[in-house]
Amino acid sequence: MIKRKHIRRIGWDADESIQDSLAIEEPLEISVKKESEIDTTKVSVTMRTPGQDGFLALGFLFTEGILNDFADVVSIGEFVENEVLITLKDTIEFNDSQLDRNFYTTSSCGVCGKASIDAIRTISSFDIDNFDLRVKKEVLYQLPQALLNHQTTFNETGGIHAAALFTNQGELISYQEDVGRHNALDKLIGEAFSQGELPLHDKILLLSGRASFELLQKAGMAGIPIVASVGAPSSLAVELAEEQGITLAGFLKKDRFNLYSRFERVL
Amino acid sequence: MIKRKHIRRIGWDADESIQDSLAIEEPLEISVKKESEIDTTKVSVTMRTPGQDGFLALGFLFTEGILNDFADVVSIGEFVENEVLITLKDTIEFNDSQLDRNFYTTSSCGVCGKASIDAIRTISSFDIDNFDLRVKKEVLYQLPQALLNHQTTFNETGGIHAAALFTNQGELISYQEDVGRHNALDKLIGEAFSQGELPLHDKILLLSGRASFELLQKAGMAGIPIVASVGAPSSLAVELAEEQGITLAGFLKKDRFNLYSRFERVL
Repeated sequence: MIKRKHIRRIGWDADESIQDSLAIEEPLEISVKKESEIDTTKVSVTMRTPGQDGFLALGFLFTEGILNDFADVVSIGEFVENEVLITLKDTIEFNDSQLDRNFYTTSSCGVCGKASIDAIRTISSFDIDNFDLRVKKEVLYQLPQALLNHQTTFNETGGIHAAALFTNQGELISYQEDVGRHNALDKLIGEAFSQGELPLHDKILLLSGRASFELLQKAGMAGIPIVASVGAPSSLAVELAEEQGITLAGFLKKDRFNLYSRFERVL
Repeated sequence: MIKRKHIRRIGWDADESIQDSLAIEEPLEISVKKESEIDTTKVSVTMRTPGQDGFLALGFLFTEGILNDFADVVSIGEFVENEVLITLKDTIEFNDSQLDRNFYTTSSCGVCGKASIDAIRTISSFDIDNFDLRVKKEVLYQLPQALLNHQTTFNETGGIHAAALFTNQGELISYQEDVGRHNALDKLIGEAFSQGELPLHDKILLLSGRASFELLQKAGMAGIPIVASVGAPSSLAVELAEEQGITLAGFLKKDRFNLYSRFERVL
């Protein structure tokens, strides 16, 4: 996930040449095909940090509503660099126009925020509103540092996002890193999806950056009741959290945070 | 650009309800049509902060290589909320498949980083390599604070990216804010494009966040010779900067930064 490069440091102790570490960014093309068909359909090209490409593709397809059941996945092929091909059972129903529609109505989310939120609510099959997870505020305080302790690529490059799942006791269950924050979350959700762990009704999601609409949409698809972000949330992220019944915390620091929705889950 | 909302602050002085400010995030659909035609073609849907939508659309179309000359623009229509329609002269040459190709080969940038960089180099018409702008390191040190002094939405929400143009004396020429960093840059470049100011051969671009491939691609299309980011650059951003002859600085602080390419422009 890291590339070495000679750079110049200006104004530190002295101006000097050093060897630095850069987070790798490369495009990934995600395609799907049915088992008995030859033709493949390209569904997305995303700029990502290589690694866990299969999870990234699965997470993308699931959070976009294209794939609902891991049992429909026949194989995950990574034959060519920067390409992943997901082969699906013939019984799964989709066609090219459905892929287009999904891509535009959820990831890029249509023409109006309200319509998009309605679309998300329709396709998400989990009733987050009724998930009764609770967490002490002192547990939330500890999460960013707990993530940093594991986040090796960030510590070396300073240039990568992370998404992590915790229990409500603050135990780190899994995490993923990527230059794109949506990719980090797709990898995390794709992994859980492939292991039959959805909905993530008893997990807390920590985001290393800001909370956008797209990230809350993905969290909603995965059935995550509590989302905490180190950075600020956007207006549409808060609206989606309210409509989906997700508890959203932002500006999470070691001794404070803001709560935007469903306050009662934080003790 | 701001929405008010009642939230709960946990762990500050005391847990309390306050009125907070959120950066607005809403989708924008960008479409194009020719003057004598009725049919419109949707080229992009992006999650953006409302405001300067015309500049955003122009900057997007220009940096994607779809639109090369502002004289080809007949009108910029914002008739419906969250939609902007750019009407172009009949003499401009594009068709639906060209729009698709441009969208995928630049924004999402093909299947391999090297091919993408080649594609960009082909369509960018400016010879940044030979732009002889110079800047003192002490001027760069001052840019982040100079931007913060103007960045009203960030100061209120803590949740918005900015892109700004400076002279090599550190004078702020223009800036734009958006929840999406690529949108902030499209707005900035779209404004300059519409005023006939390209290439921006004597300007420095400051980015409030990290430097990705996509942002360097847009800077290259606009002919900007020096790019400074407050955050880390990715590996592909550095490669593109090297190939295009752009001076790239990262981790810009008030008394230091890292230089990744074309060191000689910094004195």
